[in-house]
Amino acid sequence: MRVIAKALLPVAFFVALNVRAQTIDLSGKWQVTILHHGAYDYGRVTLKADGAQWTGKMFGDSITISMKDSAIEVRCKGDDGKECGSLKGRISDGVMHASGVIYDENSTWTAERPAAPGGSATSHEFVPKVYYNHFSGLIEPVLHINPGDTVHTTTVDAGGADAHGAHVTAGGNPLTGPFYVEGAWPGDMLVIKLKRVRLSRDSAGIYNNSVVLSSLDPYYARDQKQIEHFDSSWKLDRDAGIAALEKPTDRLKSFQVKLAPMMGCIGVAPPARQSFRSGQLGNFGGNMDYNQIREGVTLYLPVFQPGALLFVGDGHAAQGDGELTGNALETSMDVEFSVDLAEGFGLNQPHAENDDYVMVSGIENSLEDALRSATTGMSKWLAHTYNLNSAEIAMVLGSSMRYDIAEIVDPHVHVVAKLSKSALKALVPAK
Amino acid sequence: MRVIAKALLPVAFFVALNVRAQTIDLSGKWQVTILHHGAYDYGRVTLKADGAQWTGKMFGDSITISMKDSAIEVRCKGDDGKECGSLKGRISDGVMHASGVIYDENSTWTAERPAAPGGSATSHEFVPKVYYNHFSGLIEPVLHINPGDTVHTTTVDAGGADAHGAHVTAGGNPLTGPFYVEGAWPGDMLVIKLKRVRLSRDSAGIYNNSVVLSSLDPYYARDQKQIEHFDSSWKLDRDAGIAALEKPTDRLKSFQVKLAPMMGCIGVAPPARQSFRSGQLGNFGGNMDYNQIREGVTLYLPVFQPGALLFVGDGHAAQGDGELTGNALETSMDVEFSVDLAEGFGLNQPHAENDDYVMVSGIENSLEDALRSATTGMSKWLAHTYNLNSAEIAMVLGSSMRYDIAEIVDPHVHVVAKLSKSALKALVPAK
Amino acid sequence: MRVIAKALLPVAFFVALNVRAQTIDLSGKWQVTILHHGAYDYGRVTLKADGAQWTGKMFGDSITISMKDSAIEVRCKGDDGKECGSLKGRISDGVMHASGVIYDENSTWTAERPAAPGGSATSHEFVPKVYYNHFSGLIEPVLHINPGDTVHTTTVDAGGADAHGAHVTAGGNPLTGPFYVEGAWPGDMLVIKLKRVRLSRDSAGIYNNSVVLSSLDPYYARDQKQIEHFDSSWKLDRDAGIAALEKPTDRLKSFQVKLAPMMGCIGVAPPARQSFRSGQLGNFGGNMDYNQIREGVTLYLPVFQPGALLFVGDGHAAQGDGELTGNALETSMDVEFSVDLAEGFGLNQPHAENDDYVMVSGIENSLEDALRSATTGMSKWLAHTYNLNSAEIAMVLGSSMRYDIAEIVDPHVHVVAKLSKSALKALVPAK
Amino acid sequence: MRVIAKALLPVAFFVALNVRAQTIDLSGKWQVTILHHGAYDYGRVTLKADGAQWTGKMFGDSITISMKDSAIEVRCKGDDGKECGSLKGRISDGVMHASGVIYDENSTWTAERPAAPGGSATSHEFVPKVYYNHFSGLIEPVLHINPGDTVHTTTVDAGGADAHGAHVTAGGNPLTGPFYVEGAWPGDMLVIKLKRVRLSRDSAGIYNNSVVLSSLDPYYARDQKQIEHFDSSWKLDRDAGIAALEKPTDRLKSFQVKLAPMMGCIGVAPPARQSFRSGQLGNFGGNMDYNQIREGVTLYLPVFQPGALLFVGDGHAAQGDGELTGNALETSMDVEFSVDLAEGFGLNQPHAENDDYVMVSGIENSLEDALRSATTGMSKWLAHTYNLNSAEIAMVLGSSMRYDIAEIVDPHVHVVAKLSKSALKALVPAK
Repeated sequence: MRVIAKALLPVAFFVALNVRAQTIDLSGKWQVTILHHGAYDYGRVTLKADGAQWTGKMFGDSITISMKDSAIEVRCKGDDGKECGSLKGRISDGVMHASGVIYDENSTWTAERPAAPGGSATSHEFVPKVYYNHFSGLIEPVLHINPGDTVHTTTVDAGGADAHGAHVTAGGNPLTGPFYVEGAWPGDMLVIKLKRVRLSRDSAGIYNNSVVLSSLDPYYARDQKQIEHFDSSWKLDRDAGIAALEKPTDRLKSFQVKLAPMMGCIGVAPPARQSFRSGQLGNFGGNMDYNQIREGVTLYLPVFQPGALLFVGDGHAAQGDGELTGNALETSMDVEFSVDLAEGFGLNQPHAENDDYVMVSGIENSLEDALRSATTGMSKWLAHTYNLNSAEIAMVLGSSMRYDIAEIVDPHVHVVAKLSKSALKALVPAK
Repeated sequence: MRVIAKALLPVAFFVALNVRAQTIDLSGKWQVTILHHGAYDYGRVTLKADGAQWTGKMFGDSITISMKDSAIEVRCKGDDGKECGSLKGRISDGVMHASGVIYDENSTWTAERPAAPGGSATSHEFVPKVYYNHFSGLIEPVLHINPGDTVHTTTVDAGGADAHGAHVTAGGNPLTGPFYVEGAWPGDMLVIKLKRVRLSRDSAGIYNNSVVLSSLDPYYARDQKQIEHFDSSWKLDRDAGIAALEKPTDRLKSFQVKLAPMMGCIGVAPPARQSFRSGQLGNFGGNMDYNQIREGVTLYLPVFQPGALLFVGDGHAAQGDGELTGNALETSMDVEFSVDLAEGFGLNQPHAENDDYVMVSGIENSLEDALRSATTGMSKWLAHTYNLNSAEIAMVLGSSMRYDIAEIVDPHVHVVAKLSKSALKALVPAK
Repeated sequence: MRVIAKALLPVAFFVALNVRAQTIDLSGKWQVTILHHGAYDYGRVTLKADGAQWTGKMFGDSITISMKDSAIEVRCKGDDGKECGSLKGRISDGVMHASGVIYDENSTWTAERPAAPGGSATSHEFVPKVYYNHFSGLIEPVLHINPGDTVHTTTVDAGGADAHGAHVTAGGNPLTGPFYVEGAWPGDMLVIKLKRVRLSRDSAGIYNNSVVLSSLDPYYARDQKQIEHFDSSWKLDRDAGIAALEKPTDRLKSFQVKLAPMMGCIGVAPPARQSFRSGQLGNFGGNMDYNQIREGVTLYLPVFQPGALLFVGDGHAAQGDGELTGNALETSMDVEFSVDLAEGFGLNQPHAENDDYVMVSGIENSLEDALRSATTGMSKWLAHTYNLNSAEIAMVLGSSMRYDIAEIVDPHVHVVAKLSKSALKALVPAK
Repeated sequence: MRVIAKALLPVAFFVALNVRAQTIDLSGKWQVTILHHGAYDYGRVTLKADGAQWTGKMFGDSITISMKDSAIEVRCKGDDGKECGSLKGRISDGVMHASGVIYDENSTWTAERPAAPGGSATSHEFVPKVYYNHFSGLIEPVLHINPGDTVHTTTVDAGGADAHGAHVTAGGNPLTGPFYVEGAWPGDMLVIKLKRVRLSRDSAGIYNNSVVLSSLDPYYARDQKQIEHFDSSWKLDRDAGIAALEKPTDRLKSFQVKLAPMMGCIGVAPPARQSFRSGQLGNFGGNMDYNQIREGVTLYLPVFQPGALLFVGDGHAAQGDGELTGNALETSMDVEFSVDLAEGFGLNQPHAENDDYVMVSGIENSLEDALRSATTGMSKWLAHTYNLNSAEIAMVLGSSMRYDIAEIVDPHVHVVAKLSKSALKALVPAK
């Protein structure tokens, strides 16, 4: 808690708070953290002066703050008009601290000003020294960056090998990061623009020589002859833009695949301070393994923890839909991305766009649930972006929806709902 | 039980074979029907002369036929070398009939010569007078055609309206056909080349104004505002190649969809003389609702009943993946197709190709099972076509597989596994 | 199209009604068949005299019938108050026939009086001479029975063997029936009381010696050693009430199973005159393979076709949940059941009760969907039986629901939602 | 690492290692930790003297250890006979430390003696002061206990309320623990005997007044009338053993549920040092919500981290199958359990037994996958316990399997495969 609070404390506050606290105006935007019994809730509130008090809305409740000297009192009313609790505390160095009982829970309440917008965007060159095998809100950030900044860095392959093919870390999708994005607050969307996703060496590996059996009829899977010795290393011809097996069998001698470099892992700290293996995926992104997460894509991820904590890794030189072999053409990458923040609008799941498509990710337990999530997400996106009602959305989806099955081999499956921008261009954006 | 057997006993059985039966040579190909207690099994056998007898393989068993005058005896040995039964009968008008016990079942055995290959291909103009709402092996064919023939015909829309918009039959995917393909025998693949799939009128209808709720998160589905009055009729501009709502709301005023005419229903008689509503789909094809079943596609369907019995209907002017609105831009069609026969090779499910892709359909109960079926089918296709082993198949699929979610609103779901022909062109076809 | 309509036109139509048609009172209950383009819809209507006319409700529409001599006119109004069509015809021998256009469809309309309730219940001894391998509305009934009647009959095992172990028909769940129940009309529930479900011989067979692979992890399934020679015949000790392997391996020498005779197949003609293999199951019942369908159970099945057409077969001496071996202890049976009719109330799926439980069947494509269907069905049952609202239902289900996984190896899966009668006995039945 | 090593360091070692290290005999059992790049692998090895060296098997590889003074060298050979690496280090205070490269990874290798078996079993009275909302290997244990020990403690309800109804911690399944079990090592099974699971107050709450919508048909779910004000508090009559709504509606006035106290949450630290919210479940147990986890049950959980780290919480006074309301009759508990350790045998998932049943848990993404996991687990259990082959297992499961749908509302679903002990008692345990 303290670490985070400190990180967010804008420098300006150490300067501006003069002797006469009474002159402080609480009006404007605040980021609020509520801690009850070890669990965190995050919110935002915009306060307005109302006589000698300030009022605002948070989590659907109305709050009223009164201040005397540096002492503050926060009172809460539910949307049914009933009192839901009150907290007492003080404002100090521009941060309000109060404690008391809200909805029968002993709670600690902290409100701080959002980070001031950064100045000119900074370009960071970041050389990773350590890699993490978890998407986790418990890992100390390796770098603090501002919205608008660009980071140029590298990633090792899923097995931990770098651009020289050297095993520099443990396998299992080791990640570069986490990057702490100043001002990112739960409820926001983190906007990541992939400016560069390039191969950093000339070799890649599929680690298995069979497709995962869950992608096959079980009788066929049982009766398939397993191949004992098969070299599934690939050589990458970056100039020609193609990949081929390094030591192909006769029948695959001329088999080639177009290079289509992509990031398998890109994610933020998951909700509720959980810590997941880097093979996991969910609404925080993670090991999404979608072959359209490529150079040129802009990706939106929901923020679940202050600073978001962005991780990236698991580059693939190319990957079929579903990632049927359990892994793809795994390789190291040279990556550049910029970050920004956008206001959330209830679409709390990864979505993306490139020149051709708007794409919404459904990451759930089954293909059915993932499709439901992707379709629901796209519906919300259409409602928000063009102010369409359910019948209008039905016309668009019924005539024009496209689905991709991104990945079926990880702990959750990933289905993407897509609409072509050419279909959407005739629609009038909502104000 | 006996009743049925008697009913099926061909009159010819009682008619003597002509004078010089001894001169008959049983060598060559036969199509065999086995009837036991009302259930049919179909197979093919190629007999070879072996001294005074003929031998061949059928259903994995060895059969030996001896003939004296017109009397024949068929003996069967399992692949473990044990006798599995014998049948006695006669040959008459070139058709062998015999009865006896096989594998402890009283059986009637009939073998006939395959239809002689047709002469020059015929072009049929077929104007439907009646439409059927079942895929069924119990319906009398409307036309007998030969492999190589072409049929030019029309289909009404899913609601039963023809090219003039007149309701000429009951709704629920009324079908044109069935067409009996001479020589088609269970175990074959029927090859249907769609030479023409064109709109025959300027209007289409989506009958619902919402997406099916099973494609949405149930809480979102519940809370969505239902729109009472919404006109989801479309007008089709065949020259410009676009569709637009006939009476669009303000927000969809400029919304347009590219015309991409396709056949929602194309199928043969299902196995075991079942009779399914024309909304059903399965390995017999049927209401597959895949937006790539378009002009230029060649479709392969397994044959389950002599003559195959081909049905076609349910044209769509355009359809999004999944057919989320439960139906698409439903309209009447002008259709031309040719038929041919190919030998089956264990891929007993619909598959297709166009200029760009090879596509294998998985039609099963769930997206998971449909994906398993499609992936297994594509694996079999690769093994058959290029003689690849399981590791080689894994390299192709892991790097290059594409999936389409064709349809999720019908009684079974439909997932398509696709490989681009550009990826496949470097592979050497198996001899 | 016209051909069908003609075929159905009853001869009586051309016969004049008797002299004093004006005295006919149309008041009371009618069973209505609507035929449009070969497709049937069935309904019931209760007419009330309204001046010189009769009015009633059917399919949510209001109909008004006027009569002059034997000529009738039926006019229809939708629930929005708009005209939906009119039909003209006559009444003849107490049956109304009319034709015209309803909802833009050419339709033929027939209304007849429900069958008069039978007199004293009859006990039928029925010895099957033929067995059918389809649940189908296209099969001629073997016996007409009245509500209240009892039928005592026999069934062969799933492989077609009778009480003497003789193969008397083809395998694949051959069925006894169909029994035509006079007065059964679409919308009704057929009530089948299983008065006797007894073994008729001392042997049974599980035909496979492995569980279906779809019930196992695919890697485990692949690596399991397949057993080549294994005799999975069972001997049944009807006196002791136990089953044991006929030729057990050493390790199963003392393994015994309690006899718990049940019917695997019990079903009616499926909707829309479809014809399904007898391995199929659905809302028509069918191959439900639920080990609680035993002597003492009362089963409710929705009626989809006049007369219902009841089939029964596929007895099991005992069966584990899920029928994991693909079949159970398959054997022939001695069966007695009575039939009755109940009014439908929107629960169009099989349900049952015994001394201990109320059970509602969900038969769908996946376990998820089957559970949804069973839970929804139980909710409807509670709402209907006790007039509970959704919160009250939630209290009952959240505290007391029990599920059985009846069957997972057939074309659809079957989950049963159960409530114990001891939990329900405190609830007050709705009037 | 150090903390753990210290915790496990048996006291005896500080005594026994005399001056002349050369006399140390490495024979016998060791617990091994391999750390490569921050990732831990755990194993066990039993060394045998082989001339001047010691050899053993670990992770399928053969290792050979040579020692000179306190310097050791560990060499590894794969099962294909090839060298897989070597490590050098020393033995100090009875713990071997070595580092080097194994399978191309820089690795640190530590081996220590298993904890000596505890003396007499201890009974602990543990009063929790803090509760955790995560199943996590990152939380400091609240108590160290020995195999054989018993712990008597309390749990708060899922909302954080204790035996007095006081909110003493944050809601969301707060857990008592974790308890560190001395000697528990990855690969072991932790054996937890629930000696006492008793209600500690007279009230419980279902927090929702509807079933989760994913358990219903989506159209039915949408059209259900939502009830605004409904009090779903329950009062518990511990003497009579029944629960009833505190303020029932008229129609539920007499509705009662039998008390059947159970623990919703019981789990250990998940694999790979992940940290999951306490609503999660998996092979580590967790929020399993199975209504048979009651007093008298013995539960087996796989150990993923040294010490296992056992958590317990989320008591239910009663719960229907599936926990359809999303929570059950949530209440605080008085709990007593003993712990022990058993050798793992490849069944890495929760299983349990009570007087009547052996139960194996499948906790996976979907009902299909959970059933597969449960069935596979039961097959492994039968193979291990009775040495049955796949055909023998099929006979047992096909005739006698029972399934419970434990829970469908949490992040993963839980299906239990059960066999009655009366069916199993005739089987001869494997030696």
